[in-house]
Amino acid sequence: MAKAKIAVNGYGTIGKRVADAVKAQDDMEVVGVSKTKPNYEASVAHRLGYDIYTLAENVEAFEKAGMPAAGTIEEMLEKSDLVVDCTPGGIGEKNKPMYEKVGIKAIWQGGESHTISDFSFNAESNYEQAVGRDLTRVVSCNTTALCRAISAIDRELEVNKVRVSLTRRAVDPNEIKKGPVDAIVLNPVKLPSHHGPDVRSVLPHINITTAATKVPTTLMHVHTVNMDVNKDCTAEDVKNIFGSQSRIRLIGDGITSTAEIIEYARDIGRPRHDMWELCIWSESITVTEKELYFFHAVHQESIVVPENVDAIRAMMELESDGSKSIEKTNKAIGLSNK
Amino acid sequence: MAKAKIAVNGYGTIGKRVADAVKAQDDMEVVGVSKTKPNYEASVAHRLGYDIYTLAENVEAFEKAGMPAAGTIEEMLEKSDLVVDCTPGGIGEKNKPMYEKVGIKAIWQGGESHTISDFSFNAESNYEQAVGRDLTRVVSCNTTALCRAISAIDRELEVNKVRVSLTRRAVDPNEIKKGPVDAIVLNPVKLPSHHGPDVRSVLPHINITTAATKVPTTLMHVHTVNMDVNKDCTAEDVKNIFGSQSRIRLIGDGITSTAEIIEYARDIGRPRHDMWELCIWSESITVTEKELYFFHAVHQESIVVPENVDAIRAMMELESDGSKSIEKTNKAIGLSNK
Repeated sequence: MAKAKIAVNGYGTIGKRVADAVKAQDDMEVVGVSKTKPNYEASVAHRLGYDIYTLAENVEAFEKAGMPAAGTIEEMLEKSDLVVDCTPGGIGEKNKPMYEKVGIKAIWQGGESHTISDFSFNAESNYEQAVGRDLTRVVSCNTTALCRAISAIDRELEVNKVRVSLTRRAVDPNEIKKGPVDAIVLNPVKLPSHHGPDVRSVLPHINITTAATKVPTTLMHVHTVNMDVNKDCTAEDVKNIFGSQSRIRLIGDGITSTAEIIEYARDIGRPRHDMWELCIWSESITVTEKELYFFHAVHQESIVVPENVDAIRAMMELESDGSKSIEKTNKAIGLSNK
Repeated sequence: MAKAKIAVNGYGTIGKRVADAVKAQDDMEVVGVSKTKPNYEASVAHRLGYDIYTLAENVEAFEKAGMPAAGTIEEMLEKSDLVVDCTPGGIGEKNKPMYEKVGIKAIWQGGESHTISDFSFNAESNYEQAVGRDLTRVVSCNTTALCRAISAIDRELEVNKVRVSLTRRAVDPNEIKKGPVDAIVLNPVKLPSHHGPDVRSVLPHINITTAATKVPTTLMHVHTVNMDVNKDCTAEDVKNIFGSQSRIRLIGDGITSTAEIIEYARDIGRPRHDMWELCIWSESITVTEKELYFFHAVHQESIVVPENVDAIRAMMELESDGSKSIEKTNKAIGLSNK
């Protein structure tokens, strides 16, 4: 079978990781990546051998910068079966008419609204519903995290209610111009935050509300999760449920912070110190009368990356079984390296 | 009536504020403050006209530093009716035998355990129980915050359950040697944090659990509070309840962060930018079927200061009515300057 031909539109925080993850699979290939300016990220794309596509008016600038473009974004789309839109939130929607004109399947990220595709994706929650679809939205890092944790517990213990407090990293490590230096910012003041409703775009039957603050750190988000379930269980049962999920990592060994998780990712040789798994602290798992608590940490730059690969595989009908796709994706990118 | 004679043992973050707040009252006076080293804080105490007492072996060092000590700590205690222990957490307990030997009433701070006095104090929650007591503990900043909010709601709507996620400032503004620079630290990993049980040292009938993280900021803590109540109510009802409390400030006017609250405190001329009130964001108050949410911010350096003054007034039997003491304290320190 010919490999599925994938265009990555936008080569920033998510796009560069999606390109690498697609490249690592044996059933799909990267046709090219798009970049508007010949900056340091574009130069790395060039070094890695990706064909770079850009706006017609910027082709000359790439030529001058010594990283010649392979063509325009429209030309990249023409050669592809599916585009993963990794442009900044809100831009993806403006790109939709272009994708429709070319007649290409499309995946958007969580920065766009659910209505862009009328379908929101999380591999562990609803892979099968994505099979053969033309348009899909992979939910954001925080929503992906919550969907993974909630789906795992819901299958075994039936979730009744979820209440989450999110402590968000202010900016990504490479964002040098914004973010509070010494403040806790309510994000937003009005409750609930958008994360709860967003989880319901994947898991509509879950009663969930969320509240979020933004704090001066760059590495990961942390959620304090409080969940009511319908079945009796112990903390040990919950640990076993989480421990059996390939994209959940139980955290222990004296780790008490996001900084130590990232140090660990560096030590085990993860590319760009990416931690694709949702990180749940074992010791924090507490159960009292069907009420469950735990802390988890979310690597905002990478948690959605394997989800994008699975979404491609479902939409291109390369695999109809979600668990097989997840296993294949994990193995190819090295996620099994726990 | 003679003024109550108050010793302030420990002139750091809390002690210097308690000294100023006691000095501002007309029914009590500061006999002196203690300091072990002649540092910048001691020099300000000297400028402000406080008599400084120190350890016998350090009297000479103060003399040399140009801020002569008035005597030893024991001498300060001998001249006083009541000591407010503002030494670092854990030291207060070691001071207890000294206070017993002198036969002086004593107030400790929240860094000590409940058993040091077998009574924990919050002016709005249990002033009357403190009247005439010899030993009292004023609970910590976070516990004071929660007691104020919970007591107000409990009186009107009967609190059934409280679930709180605390996002704590890493260190106080003057602590230059510790605190994470780029991390979210679980504080602690094991749930619940000590704050929930500590609230029950003041309000034993409240079902409360808490989880805390520590983040790279110095200004204030933020709590995300989720509360179940027994009576039907609207967000407007809850705003009215909070709005009627003198030590709760409703926050609005586009303020979305702790930094803006502190800027506001500076602009209205608060000493040391102190925000004695618990700050609750009006717009965050949300009610769905007897389930209540809101965000509040806690100025960790100052929120317990008026509580210490009220504890003195109760223990010295200067006033038997809590609401009168609260009003008197507020007026004297300028808290009514909202």
